Amino acid sequence: MQHVQKIYADYKEQTLKDYKTFLRFESVSTDPAYKPQMTACVNWLTKYIRAMGFEVTQWPTSSHPVLFAHDLRAGPEKPTLLIYNHYDVQPVDPINEWTSPPFEPTERNGEIYARGAQDNKGQCIYVLQALNALRKKYDPLPVNIKLCIEGDEECGSTGLTEILQDESIQRELKADYLAVVDLGLHSIDAPSITLGTRGLVALEVQVKGSFFDLHSGSHGGIAYNPLHALVEMLAALRDATGKIAVPGFYDDVAELSNEERNTLSLAFDAGKYEAMFGAKPLGGESHYTPSERLWYRPTIEINGISGGYSGAGTKTVIPAKASAKLSCRLVPDQHPHKIGELVARFLRQQAPKGVDVEIEVVSGGGKAIRADHKSLVVIAFKQAYEELFNKPCEYILCGASIPVAPLLVEASESEIVFLGLGLPDDQIHAPNEHFGIDRLEKGFCVLYRAIELLGEPSKYSKALF
Amino acid sequence: MQHVQKIYADYKEQTLKDYKTFLRFESVSTDPAYKPQMTACVNWLTKYIRAMGFEVTQWPTSSHPVLFAHDLRAGPEKPTLLIYNHYDVQPVDPINEWTSPPFEPTERNGEIYARGAQDNKGQCIYVLQALNALRKKYDPLPVNIKLCIEGDEECGSTGLTEILQDESIQRELKADYLAVVDLGLHSIDAPSITLGTRGLVALEVQVKGSFFDLHSGSHGGIAYNPLHALVEMLAALRDATGKIAVPGFYDDVAELSNEERNTLSLAFDAGKYEAMFGAKPLGGESHYTPSERLWYRPTIEINGISGGYSGAGTKTVIPAKASAKLSCRLVPDQHPHKIGELVARFLRQQAPKGVDVEIEVVSGGGKAIRADHKSLVVIAFKQAYEELFNKPCEYILCGASIPVAPLLVEASESEIVFLGLGLPDDQIHAPNEHFGIDRLEKGFCVLYRAIELLGEPSKYSKALF
Repeated sequence: MQHVQKIYADYKEQTLKDYKTFLRFESVSTDPAYKPQMTACVNWLTKYIRAMGFEVTQWPTSSHPVLFAHDLRAGPEKPTLLIYNHYDVQPVDPINEWTSPPFEPTERNGEIYARGAQDNKGQCIYVLQALNALRKKYDPLPVNIKLCIEGDEECGSTGLTEILQDESIQRELKADYLAVVDLGLHSIDAPSITLGTRGLVALEVQVKGSFFDLHSGSHGGIAYNPLHALVEMLAALRDATGKIAVPGFYDDVAELSNEERNTLSLAFDAGKYEAMFGAKPLGGESHYTPSERLWYRPTIEINGISGGYSGAGTKTVIPAKASAKLSCRLVPDQHPHKIGELVARFLRQQAPKGVDVEIEVVSGGGKAIRADHKSLVVIAFKQAYEELFNKPCEYILCGASIPVAPLLVEASESEIVFLGLGLPDDQIHAPNEHFGIDRLEKGFCVLYRAIELLGEPSKYSKALF
Repeated sequence: MQHVQKIYADYKEQTLKDYKTFLRFESVSTDPAYKPQMTACVNWLTKYIRAMGFEVTQWPTSSHPVLFAHDLRAGPEKPTLLIYNHYDVQPVDPINEWTSPPFEPTERNGEIYARGAQDNKGQCIYVLQALNALRKKYDPLPVNIKLCIEGDEECGSTGLTEILQDESIQRELKADYLAVVDLGLHSIDAPSITLGTRGLVALEVQVKGSFFDLHSGSHGGIAYNPLHALVEMLAALRDATGKIAVPGFYDDVAELSNEERNTLSLAFDAGKYEAMFGAKPLGGESHYTPSERLWYRPTIEINGISGGYSGAGTKTVIPAKASAKLSCRLVPDQHPHKIGELVARFLRQQAPKGVDVEIEVVSGGGKAIRADHKSLVVIAFKQAYEELFNKPCEYILCGASIPVAPLLVEASESEIVFLGLGLPDDQIHAPNEHFGIDRLEKGFCVLYRAIELLGEPSKYSKALF
């Protein structure tokens, strides 16, 4: 692995510079106000990858364009690796909790702070620089490479999901292996490969009471307060043990198998968790361990509630309406839309008389997925991690979701692996998101080395077979 | 009463002009950002009342100043009437629901739309113009007049409450009668006098989960979501019949007496209510009628909840914290602080393990109060209403609160009456607050006439005694 680390030294400065440029684009996909910034970002990326010598296309969608690039000069006797990243980021609020501006990358203690620093621009830039370096070292590349970098990951991969229905797009994406580079490790000294993610379905709940906000004195005791209705409905979702009370919710949920218990690293350090996040690991179903709850149990989380007054001081109002955003994480065999409808029906049944309730199951959810730890792509990346870290690479799962991953597997007919250099305290989706500069190097090395290995399977460690 | 209506014709134009000037001041007391506008407003009012020939002082407080004015030239053989109004207004949000800007008074269909149009600038301006007209007609005035116009009514009357402890202030306020002109009628064709208000205590609840917002995928099932904790705590406040579940909450609550049933107009038109507000009268305790729930039963209302993401699209976050604003309306004999502490203790007991809960009982609540319908001040205003409307004046109660009223009664040692020309659909505390131009005249006439009557009790209708 030292040969790769030596190569990185030549790319280090450029990688950091390009990374910062990438981070300055305010590519928030979920809010239509950022559309021009999204376009500027994908155009920059297109030019950037084209300059590396790849053929690059922007596939238009009804949302943001998908960037597709390829270099197939390795030829048909070599496998094809499809790599997935995304160029969009989460919204930045609460903006006042950022120490430095979210779109002005700022270095503190060896970390770069910015929205998207990890998720997913940091992980995208080391992939691109590894390919750049490989192209300069090898001609042709050790394997055929396809890149799919979408712009809707943070809003349910709407655009990519839509065009994956198209047969010509499916043909373009055909590959032997698919590497989804949007995940991470438990800690920087514990190399690991992710063998699956949970699924996702989101809901929007709106409760309407009156034509307009009412005075809580003149109407308190007469009108049904939509916020009361909302908290009563949402509180009913779970029982005292944290079990979800929606009938049918667990129907398709399997218990953890012995094989899974033996393959995966299920240890969980409660003290370390609390020190890192300030939270005790006491959410979810009390009859399961934290790792089981995170990987093998579905959840319902309230992602936001709004209604009434929340400024300084008091305002004695009964709001005309109140709303909540919910999302469920799903495990294999749970169907997103079916679960969404079960939750919606249950909430409608809880609604008290006196208010009107509207519930929308948001489209764009995704199923949970599992990778096969016997696939060559898993083995190649495992080997690359072990060479870099000089210790055994563990298998883990991820509680988060990449809803488009199962659809990409289906369209490309490939074997999937999930990887990345994210760490649990990178504060992705939160204020002060950050990513270590050292991890740009590590990511570069893992990608570079795994691609070398995939091109010449005889180089794999025999111990792995 | 026709003589008063004729007099108003000469004051109509000026009243409307001055009313609009008064409304343009953005006198939001609850938000410190509006401090300069508060000062500008009270300075304008001071100049205005001084120009009417009153002696005017601004009593400083730790919050906004209290305007005090008097004209005692009627002499000790005449009674003294203390009149209460306030110059501050509620916040304006949600601002995007206003049809015209809240601080640019706009006339539509004979109504003036603006924040404070009714509560309380509309009701203050007709009081002032009635006094202005009386001073031009009588020298001296029929009774001694004191005016107390505070600037903290919408944030718990902090400033006035504080200075009411002061004996010299108490001496200045001494009066025989106190008219609190901040209330209204059921409908414009039903004259009524209000014999009491509910009390108030407010609470702020904050639930903290983690150091920062967490990803709902990477932490869902591990961390306890503060929004879940909050909805569970708040949902526990009431049972399925709407009864408040806090132990001790109803300990000091008396049932409605037969005398009260006979004096008060308890009828309630559910169809009219729904047509006016868009809400069915199905809130509160199901075993009581709507008027009983509004006047004789205490409540807990959630005035606002905030936490997590509520912008466009989805954000799969577990917020680091969530908060709620609550307020209780109280009935006679319930002590605000005691009730606030009972609710706070109950909520703390409901808090699940895994989150930290902080609850503050907001200072500045107030007790409920009842006026005596046999007091001369009640009878004089009743007579004025009946002369103006040419029909019997009913006695009602008010579900809202004027926390400072019982304190003013105590300080001034006076007999209280509550009155005003507000109507239930004026949308006070809400977007598009409005007040009818015709009501400026009605208010003027009632004040003018009642003051004439108070100066010469022999003019009272004999039927009233």
